[in-house]
Formats: sequence, structure tokens, C-alpha cells
Amino acid sequence: MSRRRHSIATACLSGLLEDKLDAAAAAGFDGVELFVPDLLGSPEPPEVIARRCADLGLAIDLYQPVRDLEGLPPDAFAAALRRVDHALDVMARLGTTTALVCSAVDPRGVDDDDLAAAQLAQVADRAADRGMRIAYEALAWGRHVNTWDHSWRIVERADHPALGLCVDSFHLYSRGGDPAGLRDVPGEKIFFLQLADAPHLAMDVLPWSRHHRLFPGQGDFDLTTLVAHLDAAGYDGPWSLEVFNDVFRQADPRPAAVDARRSLLGLAEDLAGTPRPRLGGTAFVELATDPGTSGEVTDALAAFGFARTGEHRRKPVSLWEAGGARLVVRERLPDDRAGTAVAGLAVRSPDPEGLARRATDLLAPREELPHAGDEAELRAVRAPDGTLLFCCPERPEPGGDDFWPGDFAPTGTIPADGPVRGIDHVALTPPYDLVAEAELFCRTVLGLAPVAEPTEVVAPFGVVRSRLFADDAPDPVRVVLSSSLVRRGGWAPGVPAPQSVALAVDDVEAVARAAAAAGLALLDVGPNYYDDLVARGVVDAAEAARLREHRVLVDADGGYRHVVTEVLGGRVFLEAVQRTGDDRGYGAADAPVRMAAQRRARHAGG
Amino acid sequence: MSRRRHSIATACLSGLLEDKLDAAAAAGFDGVELFVPDLLGSPEPPEVIARRCADLGLAIDLYQPVRDLEGLPPDAFAAALRRVDHALDVMARLGTTTALVCSAVDPRGVDDDDLAAAQLAQVADRAADRGMRIAYEALAWGRHVNTWDHSWRIVERADHPALGLCVDSFHLYSRGGDPAGLRDVPGEKIFFLQLADAPHLAMDVLPWSRHHRLFPGQGDFDLTTLVAHLDAAGYDGPWSLEVFNDVFRQADPRPAAVDARRSLLGLAEDLAGTPRPRLGGTAFVELATDPGTSGEVTDALAAFGFARTGEHRRKPVSLWEAGGARLVVRERLPDDRAGTAVAGLAVRSPDPEGLARRATDLLAPREELPHAGDEAELRAVRAPDGTLLFCCPERPEPGGDDFWPGDFAPTGTIPADGPVRGIDHVALTPPYDLVAEAELFCRTVLGLAPVAEPTEVVAPFGVVRSRLFADDAPDPVRVVLSSSLVRRGGWAPGVPAPQSVALAVDDVEAVARAAAAAGLALLDVGPNYYDDLVARGVVDAAEAARLREHRVLVDADGGYRHVVTEVLGGRVFLEAVQRTGDDRGYGAADAPVRMAAQRRARHAGG
Repeated sequence: MSRRRHSIATACLSGLLEDKLDAAAAAGFDGVELFVPDLLGSPEPPEVIARRCADLGLAIDLYQPVRDLEGLPPDAFAAALRRVDHALDVMARLGTTTALVCSAVDPRGVDDDDLAAAQLAQVADRAADRGMRIAYEALAWGRHVNTWDHSWRIVERADHPALGLCVDSFHLYSRGGDPAGLRDVPGEKIFFLQLADAPHLAMDVLPWSRHHRLFPGQGDFDLTTLVAHLDAAGYDGPWSLEVFNDVFRQADPRPAAVDARRSLLGLAEDLAGTPRPRLGGTAFVELATDPGTSGEVTDALAAFGFARTGEHRRKPVSLWEAGGARLVVRERLPDDRAGTAVAGLAVRSPDPEGLARRATDLLAPREELPHAGDEAELRAVRAPDGTLLFCCPERPEPGGDDFWPGDFAPTGTIPADGPVRGIDHVALTPPYDLVAEAELFCRTVLGLAPVAEPTEVVAPFGVVRSRLFADDAPDPVRVVLSSSLVRRGGWAPGVPAPQSVALAVDDVEAVARAAAAAGLALLDVGPNYYDDLVARGVVDAAEAARLREHRVLVDADGGYRHVVTEVLGGRVFLEAVQRTGDDRGYGAADAPVRMAAQRRARHAGG
Repeated sequence: MSRRRHSIATACLSGLLEDKLDAAAAAGFDGVELFVPDLLGSPEPPEVIARRCADLGLAIDLYQPVRDLEGLPPDAFAAALRRVDHALDVMARLGTTTALVCSAVDPRGVDDDDLAAAQLAQVADRAADRGMRIAYEALAWGRHVNTWDHSWRIVERADHPALGLCVDSFHLYSRGGDPAGLRDVPGEKIFFLQLADAPHLAMDVLPWSRHHRLFPGQGDFDLTTLVAHLDAAGYDGPWSLEVFNDVFRQADPRPAAVDARRSLLGLAEDLAGTPRPRLGGTAFVELATDPGTSGEVTDALAAFGFARTGEHRRKPVSLWEAGGARLVVRERLPDDRAGTAVAGLAVRSPDPEGLARRATDLLAPREELPHAGDEAELRAVRAPDGTLLFCCPERPEPGGDDFWPGDFAPTGTIPADGPVRGIDHVALTPPYDLVAEAELFCRTVLGLAPVAEPTEVVAPFGVVRSRLFADDAPDPVRVVLSSSLVRRGGWAPGVPAPQSVALAVDDVEAVARAAAAAGLALLDVGPNYYDDLVARGVVDAAEAARLREHRVLVDADGGYRHVVTEVLGGRVFLEAVQRTGDDRGYGAADAPVRMAAQRRARHAGG
């Protein structure tokens, strides 16, 4: 099947109309829905807008919305027809042929399908006279028509070739609608498909629709099933995004448009049943460090049992290893003020080149990394936040060479046997306006899936929402995305939610003892926390005393035990995690006390 | 009646426990509710926390919450009693005597009032043994007990002197509860009152409660009636704020605590029926201008018919007058980079000193303005955003001296008779995290009331929420507060929502002609907007042509006609408004096209 056309409503994006069109074209969209307020806000006559779209390779697939047309008393319908005539005039000047008509909310409207069908047929007559057509959509809050099947009954009754359906996934799913019946609608009567995802929210549909829609794959709606039914019906029009979201409406439209189109590419994969990429665990994590505080990071690694096993032959980059865990520590150049941060995540794959190609197909820019002589050619793409995603080969047989033999000169140091087994997870902290994009990147490019619903905790400097993404391999890649719900103003200087690298360990108390022996101050949250563990019956008093001595935190149900460092280099901390049973946590319940203690340690330290 | 004690839950404020306590004490609170997670996040033992509170003059009025105690099967209740014993131990160390027990959400709980009463009585026995007491609160989402009257039936049934009610205004009003019955509860059985306001939101009570509570006077709940009933019942405990709000939870706790306490002072005024201050209109607006672009502002004023009537004797400040409108234009010092902005709002009052004193009673800091010789002593307080609020005498009889005869040297210029009558309104644009505080300031200090529900419009760079506040005097003081719902990141450089000063005029087209004659470019939104006015039947084609020629915008229903300038000095625009009938608008519906055109004009200009 040829690729479906991808379209996007201008209402999804921020900026002036010209900003939106430029962004949509740059992201590879084929067309737009022109949202009337964007036209009204433009000083250009419709012909000029049409030319601009054509120059950018964008069709104007839909003119929208026209409201409150059907089921009206005669005088109101006469006024409505004047609005229709104007809309058709503008459409002619734009060179577009399909108008979206939303089901009426007008309090004068009556619940009379015959009247609605007759009036819509009149509207369709006028459209047909000009070679145009009307796509009728049931708003979830329409006064009398608010389900897709009701809108279809009216379209059937009108039986007019220029009148068809517009199916909107939000209006359908937000009212618990079932898309299965769409299979039985003749494909040629489905004039348009508007796609939006959304989180399940227990709130009125209208504000839910106007503020909280998301791009497909970012929310909870089953859009794959919907498009499968539309495929079965024979719908061959565009997949068009109509996503009203407060965050996207104020965000740079260029990355937002890329995020939007990635969502459609992901949906196409889901529909085709494309298997998710098979991963083989986390090969390494790259930390970029601030030259002034690099020692904070490397001292902590050493205290956790890591050995510096290699020194890059040409760059201030060192390789640290412990058990199956590898960290690459790159000291930033003196004039690079970006600070200590997770700069790269390397995943193993049986087909690294295929994984990288797939990422670029999903609009992640390929990063050409200079490499010389016998250095490994690392395949990498850049995530939306600038983090590099390295695609590495699978782990070699014991004794075999790994993928970068030439890059690092061995230091001769061999890590001692210790409790560290590998990388448990990496926790990243995008700002709240970039979380949906980061989640979609993890889901599509890496094929990770959310492990559970998001958690929200009240941290000392604001509410923090987190979610764990992972694949289901025996050695999973796990990424936690955490962000403050709101953040503005000068309070809470510094980074309130630092990133972390969590190491999987067999014995967290052994790590604590080794760290103490090495002089590393693990985070101490104080006695109240341990008294509470006992009061809640999580551990007994003797165990609590031992945990406190070792500074071990115990997340909610007790299956996730961890020690954490203070914040290193201003933005990252290390964590050693011992899991029991099939624990799927990531320390979310502990985050508030952990963050308070980290803040106090920072104050004490400086 | 002696002043009621004011208390605040530590959960209302952002930061570490010590930040919260400092902020509460500095704002004049008498006590706090200690939220258990704040205790767990503190490394200090309870005794040290108690001492810190005592040193700050803060009582610990409540320890909260203890959850899931009542209606439980025996084994679960035994575990719950262990938690109770721990809580009572901690309370003893804190020196606090009242614990909040929330109605159970535990799925093991049974709907059995006798069991619940018996178990709560057991808990109360343990508290009584230590001289403590239990305040039982119905959570709005409690499994079996979720209304205050149900919680009261259980407390009555338990009939234990150490068991009483905690009344929480959110839990009561969010479920549509009626507080009238509280009059009949014996005052000594009401152990505690938690106050929170909230906007009416059609969503589940739990997320509504956890994210969207507001301080009294910032939302839609009738808290005055509630406290009146509790007064009638004889409740004499503290008024305590328990406000969970995502914005406050990440905001600087010092101004947030002041905002919080102002809300209780306002509530006390409402309860006492204190009359709102009588105002006599807007005396003047002070604009601070950037020296480099000062001429943009003064040229526009001149084009609108203003004359520079006075020059300050000692400062780079000029007085501009037209009809009853006065603007004071103060050129900033060259090293003051704050940019052009509304720096002051002056209102007239029959008792300026009383108004200023009232403002300081409501925690607005008095601003001592240096004045020399025969200069007027201007009374001023500072609003939370730094704007000065001047309290001026009423307008003198015609021919009489106004309040600042000595400050300005007359230039000899007299404004020509023109269409400008006075100041229609001032529109300010606080960032979204400061809107609730700004609204409360307007409501309490100035006694302004919201004129209608807030409007939300989709502006080119994000959704903007606005609300008009005004008094009901013949010459009203009107303030519009507008803010973007979300704003983060580097898109939309410059200020997306500029402030404005709107002038009331008799004939907006005459203003437009005069402005054109003076060479002032009024904002031109282009033809699509006018075509749409005709299509919607707001005006006919001939009138639309004339409006377009004069660049007049017509808000939603046609009663508000205005011309606006481009953005002057980077942040402020002027507007001339002609109202017909009892129009109560402020150009909200036009804001998106206006903002798009202003943005385009800025691009074209620079």
C-alpha cells in the first residue's frame, strides 16, 4: 500500500500561520488543515496563503471549522447559510475542497435528525455546486449529535454525494465510543480522519479536548484499532492530526511538528505490526562532566567499585567498568558550560545499523561521529533533548573483543569482582513541556513500553511526575522520565530533579560498606524516615537500624532497596539498586525524601 | 471578638521544612499543620523541629494525616493501631496534641458506622491517655465516609471526648455539601477547620483536590458562609489553610505565605461585612519607559490627542493629559534595563490615607516616596508584581487644584478638546504562576470584583486566560489580568502578551483619523478579519469597509470597538475604546488577531 498522506491542523502548532506552515513542511507533512482563526490572524488574502502552501509542498486538506449549521430554526439557518457561503468563497480562493462542519451546540438547535439531514443536504448542495464537499463531525459535546454513529445516521439519511463523515478519534474515544462499526461505513463516505490521542482524564470532555490532547502514542487511546477499522472500510484520505494542547500551543513549532509526524510514523508501524527493535541491554552510559567537578563523579564511581579501564587515545574521555556496567566519562572543554549531565545512552542491538536507520526513518537526526584509524565507527542518532543514542553491537562472547577495541588505551587496571552487575536504569529529567516528546521518542525509536501508569509525588520543590519505560528483554533497557509539573520563577535554584544513573547490584549493603570504606558520603535522609518504615511495618526495628547505618532507602513495598549519592557536579547522582522478586519500581516513592536530603547536602556543601 | 488564629499546612508551601516554617512565620501565621512527608524529609528529630517552631512563634496546631484507621477487619486494624501509636509518639515529641485522621480509602474497609465509631473510639482512647485528641475528616473520595455529615454521625456515635470533627471546606464544597448543618454541631466537637478555595472544575474530586486548590478568595467556593456557620456553632480553633496547588508547591514560599495570609484577612473582612473601599476612578497610570524608546510612547500619546501639560521639577517625568485621562511617563535611568512597562496605577479615594492603611493591613508593603518642598505626598503601596498602587484624593471641583500642584512645572500646553474621556482599563500580564496572587490583591486591597468568568483564547503563542476586575462606581477602576496558561522555552521571544493602557473615548473613528493625521500607524489586522465580521453578520459590508479603513477592531458582540497601537517600547500598547450600551468586554475575542498583527509589526519593524 502506498504511504498514507500525513496532514496536521494548524491549530496544533504555535506561532504565526507562516511559522506553522514552515514547520509542517520541514517535518515532511503533505498537507494541513487550515484553522479559521489562523486565517483571520493573517494579513494575507487566501490566494497568497494558498500559494505559500503550494510553494512549501503542502496541500490544504481541510478548511475548519464551520459551526452550528444543522437542526436550526429557519431564521438561524438562513444566517448559517450566509456563513457557509462565505466559507465556500474563502475555500475557493484557497483552492481547498473539503470543509469540516462540527455538530451544533447552538441552544436554538432541535433534536430532529430529519431536519438536520435536510439542512446539511442544503449545505452540501451549495458545496457541490462549487465542486466541494462537507465533512460532518460529531463533537463530543454537541447539543444533540455527539457520537460518530449518530452523525453517520444523519449523513446516511441526507444521502448526498457531497456530504460525508469526518471521524475524530478524540470525540469517539472520549465518550467511550466503539470504532468497530466504522468498518461498515462505505469508505467513500468517510471524507476525513482527524487523529488525536489523550490521557484518560476524569474530567469534562470539552476542557479535556481543548487542553489535553496529545499526538498518537503519547496518550491512552487505541488509535491503531481505529485506523485498522478505517482501513477496512476503505478510507484512503489523509491521517490528519488535530491536537489541542496547551504545551504544544506555546512551544517551538519546528520540533513540535517533527514530534507530530513521528507519532504518525509510529502509528503506521503499529498498524503494520512492525516488530519493535530487539535490544540487548545498555552497553554504556556517557556522562559529560564539568572539568571543575569531574572528580566528584569519578571518585563516586571508584567508591562504587568501578575501575578506570581505558583512556581514550585522543580525547579527555575515560572508560569505567564494574561487572557488566560501563560508563564513559567525558570531560567537557573548559569553555563548555553545559555542566555535568547524561550525554549519551548506548544500547546493544543484533543489528546496530538497522536500529540507527530505523531511528532516522523516525526523524531522529543521524550524528556523524568523527573516528580515526582503528577506532570503532559508533552509530548514533540524536534524541530531541540533545542526548546521543548510540547503537552498539551485542555483547561479545566472554574473552571476545567488544566494539571499540581501538578507541581506548587500556590502563591495565581490571575491576575487582564486586556487587555491581550492570546498568539498572537511567533517569532523565526533561522539562515538563518536553516529556511527551521524550516519551514518544523512547516508545517509537527504542521500542520501549511504559511499565506502569505514571507516578506523581510531591517533592520539596514541586510535584514530580515520572514514568518508567523498558523493553521486555532479559537484560532490559530501562529509562525513567521525570519532570516537574510546573516550573517557573527563581525559587529552587539549581536543578530540582537531577538525572541519575542507577547500577544494578547484588548486595546493596555491600556497596554501602565499600563506599564508606572509600570515603564516599552516601546520602543520609535521617532518622524520621526509618522510624516510619518500622511504623508502617515494612521492616522491623533491627533491620531499620541496619538500613539506616548503611543509608539504604527502601521504596514503597520493600522490593527496591537503594543507596544514592549526593548530587555530583550539580546535576547527576549515582544510585546502586538491589531488586527482589519482580520489583518494577525506580524509587519514586522515595524521591521526596531523597530530593530533600540532596538539597540539604548541596546547601551544606556550598 | 479576638482575632482568630491563622494556621497553614506545610503542604501548601514549597521548599524544605525549614523554608516553609520561615515563610509562615514571616507572613505572620500563628501556627502550622505539620504534614508528615515534611517530617520524613527532615533530618531533624521531632524535638528539634518543635524547638524551631517555638523559636519562630509558630504552634504546631495539627499533625497530619493519619490514614485508613476505621471500618477495618481486625488484623488490618491492629496494624493501624501500631501506626497510631507511632504517630502519637511523634506528636508527643513535637508537643502537638491534635492528629488529623482522614476517612479510610482502604479497599478492605467495610461500610459499618458502628464498627467505624468503635474503632475511632479506641484510637481516641489512646490519644486521650496522652492528653491528645483525634480530628476525624471525611475525604471527598473516602471509600464509605465521604461527607461531613456522615463523619459527624460517626463521631456522635463514638461519643468520645477525644474524638471530634475536622471540617475541610474543599471536601465539603467539592461534593456539593451544605455547611448549614454545621451550626447545630456543638462547637467543642469541631476540633479543626481546614480552609481551601477552588475553581469549579468538572473533574474527579481527587485530582481536583490535589492539584487545583486555591487560597480563599481565589476560587469559587463560598467560604464566608462556611465560617459564619462555624462561628455560629461556637468553633474557636484556628482558621487553617490546606491548599494543594501545583503552582504554589513550586513557588517561592515567602510571597506565597503572604498571599496565603492575605486570603484569611480578606475572609475575615468578608465575614465581618467590612465594606469594600469606595474608589473614585483611575487618577493616572504611570508608564516607565526605556530611554531608547520613550519617544514611541509619547508620540503615540500625542497622536491620541494627549498634551504634555507638565514636566516634573526634579525628575525625568512628564505629565500627559487628554480629557479626564492622565498618564505619567517616567523615563528610566540609562542603566535601568527593566524596559517599558506599567509601573504604577493611581486610584482616587475619598480617604487616601485610609485606603493605604488598609492595604498595609492586608500585607501590602507601604512605599515611602521621597518628596520635597511643596510636592504632594503620594501615598503608595507595592503590589506583589512590583507595580506601585497610588492612593489619591478624589477629583477636585472644576477649576480646583488636584493633588500634585507642586510636582510638575506647567508646560503651558493645554490639551485640545478631543474624544478621549478617561482611562477605560489597564491590562496587566502577570506570568501564570502569579495570577491567583494578583487577582487576590485586586479583590482584597482594591475591593475590585471579577466582572464575569475568565475567558480563554487561543493566541498565536499559547492559550491566554484573562479576567476583568472592576468596582461598581460610575467611573470604575478596571484592571484586566491576562496570562499565558503555559510558558517555557525559547520560542516566542519578546513578550507574547504585552500590557496595555486603554483609553475611554467617545468616537473611536475620530481617534483613528487624528492618529492617522499625526502619522501614527495603528495596528492593521488585514482583510480576512473584516470579511469574517460581515459573514458573521456583526456589520454590513459598507461598515466593514469603513472600520477597516480606520483600523477599528470590533469585539465579539459589537459593543466594544477599539483601535490599538503596535507594541511600544517592547512591552506596552495603547488602545482607544468606544463602548456602546452596557458592554463589559475588554477585547478578549480580538486578542488573537491583535497579537498576531502586533507580532508581525514587530518583525517588520526590526
